Amino acid sequence: MDKYKEPDKKDILIAAERIQHTLHRTPVLSCSFINNMVGAEIFFKCENFQKAGAFKSRGATNAILCYDDYDLRAGVATHSSGNHAAALARAAQLKHIPAYIVMPDNSSKVKVEAVKGYGGKITFCKPTLEAREEKLNEVLNETNAFEIHPYNNYAVIAGQATAALELIEDYAELDTIVAPVGGGGLLSGTALAAHYFSQNTKVIGAEPTGADDAYQSFYQKKLIPSINPDTIADGLRTSLGSLTFPIIRHLVSDIITVNDHATIEAMKMVWERMKIIIEPSSAVALAMVIKHKHRFARQKIGIILSGGNVDLMHLPWL
Amino acid sequence: MDKYKEPDKKDILIAAERIQHTLHRTPVLSCSFINNMVGAEIFFKCENFQKAGAFKSRGATNAILCYDDYDLRAGVATHSSGNHAAALARAAQLKHIPAYIVMPDNSSKVKVEAVKGYGGKITFCKPTLEAREEKLNEVLNETNAFEIHPYNNYAVIAGQATAALELIEDYAELDTIVAPVGGGGLLSGTALAAHYFSQNTKVIGAEPTGADDAYQSFYQKKLIPSINPDTIADGLRTSLGSLTFPIIRHLVSDIITVNDHATIEAMKMVWERMKIIIEPSSAVALAMVIKHKHRFARQKIGIILSGGNVDLMHLPWL
Repeated sequence: MDKYKEPDKKDILIAAERIQHTLHRTPVLSCSFINNMVGAEIFFKCENFQKAGAFKSRGATNAILCYDDYDLRAGVATHSSGNHAAALARAAQLKHIPAYIVMPDNSSKVKVEAVKGYGGKITFCKPTLEAREEKLNEVLNETNAFEIHPYNNYAVIAGQATAALELIEDYAELDTIVAPVGGGGLLSGTALAAHYFSQNTKVIGAEPTGADDAYQSFYQKKLIPSINPDTIADGLRTSLGSLTFPIIRHLVSDIITVNDHATIEAMKMVWERMKIIIEPSSAVALAMVIKHKHRFARQKIGIILSGGNVDLMHLPWL
Repeated sequence: MDKYKEPDKKDILIAAERIQHTLHRTPVLSCSFINNMVGAEIFFKCENFQKAGAFKSRGATNAILCYDDYDLRAGVATHSSGNHAAALARAAQLKHIPAYIVMPDNSSKVKVEAVKGYGGKITFCKPTLEAREEKLNEVLNETNAFEIHPYNNYAVIAGQATAALELIEDYAELDTIVAPVGGGGLLSGTALAAHYFSQNTKVIGAEPTGADDAYQSFYQKKLIPSINPDTIADGLRTSLGSLTFPIIRHLVSDIITVNDHATIEAMKMVWERMKIIIEPSSAVALAMVIKHKHRFARQKIGIILSGGNVDLMHLPWL
């Protein structure tokens, strides 16, 4: 693929082929209790079972496998407090190159351990976007590593698109696919996959009320970054990027917000009823569908459960 | 089947056919992190994904479907604080007969709600075995309901055997299958399934140190009931029965105990690494394998994850 232009149909298919040997084709589960409650048929794409516990492995792996060895000769780098950090470290390990990860010094112990477990080289910084970018620039200068941005990167977006591609392959004729939106890598990839492989399927983004930059940007038709985002969904505190926003604006049908209280309820319901562990960011999509169940009545709905990395010592309902 | 004799090969196959339309054929999962740690290949049979959240649905459903309508005309009854209660209530609902459940008044709210959710008629009693049996006798006399014991019942044992049957069908040539042991319904069923369908597979029971009546009975070659069992594994506080013990004594290779500390560690590891919710009773089997990993080195091991019903407000590691 041309890593510097928006992924097309072929790019997404090639990404799927490229990552298939090192990642899981995740299962799609359903739950009769939740279907009855919502009055719809929901198909959960379980990226919580993905390698490194989140869909982020798709984008990070596709990027690392599609850039030239020469570009990556000094390794890769990123700043991330969460799932992209572990996903990139794991992907780099597969290719035997170093991964330099800048992490805020308040990152959860579980996520720091995950990055270390995959051999990532961590540099800590203050927990502000400024400090993260400044420290990453230092690391890039020192190491000559190649930056793999968590979402504002077309190779990453093509990788994230493969989750919805698999869902569409398994379940044709979905009326709607709902994905959570933070930086927009998953949502833009999902929208591209539906556009190319299931044109009658609408794609809707679900976003926390306390970090509603995508909602604001979508309706005001210009990029409006989050200021002091406040949500339990730690994966969704980032703002849309210059590459993800145009795709979302063009191909996504709607962005709908939901508050953290509803997200925590939905998360607990999935744990209790489906016996699977999802993180708050994943629960945002289901919470939104439950809140607007009349809008989705009798539909076939795909929901991408984005990840399952939770600090089990600190659960949001306790 | 003759409900009053030990299940044979045909009885188990018929049970599997009988229950297949109302229960899940549960998936078998594996986890490379755990395999590497143990140095073996482990196949987890996920009964936590079973209807009503535990393998108990197999036995209860088989029993209700194999007894005569005449016997069940006034409904079914049992005493249970846990998964058998919900499983029996659900199975009775499928057959449109009442289920009378005697539950100790300290039963967890989640389990009481589950029984109510399936339409079970609950009578509370003091939390002692004496009080439970006394109250059940009252209920049986009042209602003329038919008692379905949680494990000391051959139709129940034949139903529980179907979990291992499915595991053996999916993965031939297992060296060992490990199941947790409480009253022995699952372990005796597992042993029968291996005996009839995979003769080279050893079956081992895993039991909490604080409720080691099966271990004691197995090695002293006589039935020794638990006195004041003390374990986090709430499903394993019961004692072997007169029907389960002879099967276990005859067909099980060993019973090995493990302490609650190791069980809690194993439970948390499964939540963290596999992103699935299992209850403490399920974790006992993995904890035992981890503790004795040299004994199991390089084996193919089936582990039956018995259930996933956990009170999410009270986690054992918090």
